[in-house]
Amino acid sequence: MSTLEKRQAADLPRYAKIRQMNRGGYDRTVAYDILDAGLVAHCGFIHEDRPMVIPMAYARIDDRIYIHGASTTRIIKSNAEGVPASLTVTLVDGLVVARSAFHHSMNYRCAIVHGTARLVESEQEQIEALAAITDHLLPGRWDECREMMPKEHKATGVLVMDIDHVSTKVRTGGPVDDKEDLGTDIWAGVVPVVTALGQPLSAPDVPAETPVPASVPAARRKFA
Amino acid sequence: MSTLEKRQAADLPRYAKIRQMNRGGYDRTVAYDILDAGLVAHCGFIHEDRPMVIPMAYARIDDRIYIHGASTTRIIKSNAEGVPASLTVTLVDGLVVARSAFHHSMNYRCAIVHGTARLVESEQEQIEALAAITDHLLPGRWDECREMMPKEHKATGVLVMDIDHVSTKVRTGGPVDDKEDLGTDIWAGVVPVVTALGQPLSAPDVPAETPVPASVPAARRKFA
Repeated sequence: MSTLEKRQAADLPRYAKIRQMNRGGYDRTVAYDILDAGLVAHCGFIHEDRPMVIPMAYARIDDRIYIHGASTTRIIKSNAEGVPASLTVTLVDGLVVARSAFHHSMNYRCAIVHGTARLVESEQEQIEALAAITDHLLPGRWDECREMMPKEHKATGVLVMDIDHVSTKVRTGGPVDDKEDLGTDIWAGVVPVVTALGQPLSAPDVPAETPVPASVPAARRKFA
Repeated sequence: MSTLEKRQAADLPRYAKIRQMNRGGYDRTVAYDILDAGLVAHCGFIHEDRPMVIPMAYARIDDRIYIHGASTTRIIKSNAEGVPASLTVTLVDGLVVARSAFHHSMNYRCAIVHGTARLVESEQEQIEALAAITDHLLPGRWDECREMMPKEHKATGVLVMDIDHVSTKVRTGGPVDDKEDLGTDIWAGVVPVVTALGQPLSAPDVPAETPVPASVPAARRKFA
């Protein structure tokens, strides 16, 4: 049993007593924990009057979120000048199986950020952002790599979004069935969803004696 | 090693020869495979001139996507009348670790759907949609539950989105480093991201003799 499965198992009796487990909130500590634990963010912006949702690597520094892409891509170009943007990070923790279809649900933690995206102009801020994005997934990786070259900086667009507003939604615990449905022979419970990093696979052109760097086990611990 | 890890390990030498592995496309077969394999969708819509991105349970039937929520929620009410909407499903397969920070990437499969969302009015279509959403996560679960009650139908809003346009983006394989960076002592490779369902946890009020239903192992096989 993984840590997450153990935690969910421990939570079940505790939450069985609570009828309402969808908790919306505006606590930045909760939101930032979710943001810091995600693999990808889903970024929302408006393009030609239509909503667009794009998965992106990202990182948080203080009250700012950074995302990046090739300088030439639409998401970078169309958000450069300061436009309303949003970004959602969702961690799926379990399938909630109830006696009735109606009470089926998911356990998840979600942070929804609203802000204004704009292109990062300062080279120093760009470097800090790219280091944070790299280290968000692979803690310490930035310092393991060779230094970035000027042409690489030029080819990369970084957007910053000040976190003007953030909300969270968290559901935990077991199913909340109607009283009339208890005592039937229909099973109910939670099926945990486990996301983890597997064993690293070396690229074929990496010499066999090259050690796996510290950032890889650090990432495996972070996303365990 | 999981099936996914094995597949990624097998892919590495194959993809090492290919320089460009970010494949954008418009193939509905590829898109529908991604849509059918996701746990949650991130739905994008415009609310008061701002983009909103909300995680939702969903299902596909033919060329339509269904999502649902309480009849009273904003996403249901503000999309009822036929407004532009989008929906993105992303499957994260691995962290791509390169010699340079610049060439770090992720392996992922993503389907981006555009369409017009509108409220489902027909009761028959609502039932089919709710069955599909339930069975998307837990194959066969709809038939294991008691029948839905009229008040539950009334409390549930279902939106349908015709898939007017869908695009996919898929990245697979190992890092694509610059030639000058090969032969250094910096490690490179892929760290697989594995999402799976754990052992089911019974709710405390389920009698010990109640068997775990077929939908649970079916879900564990589907999301293995």
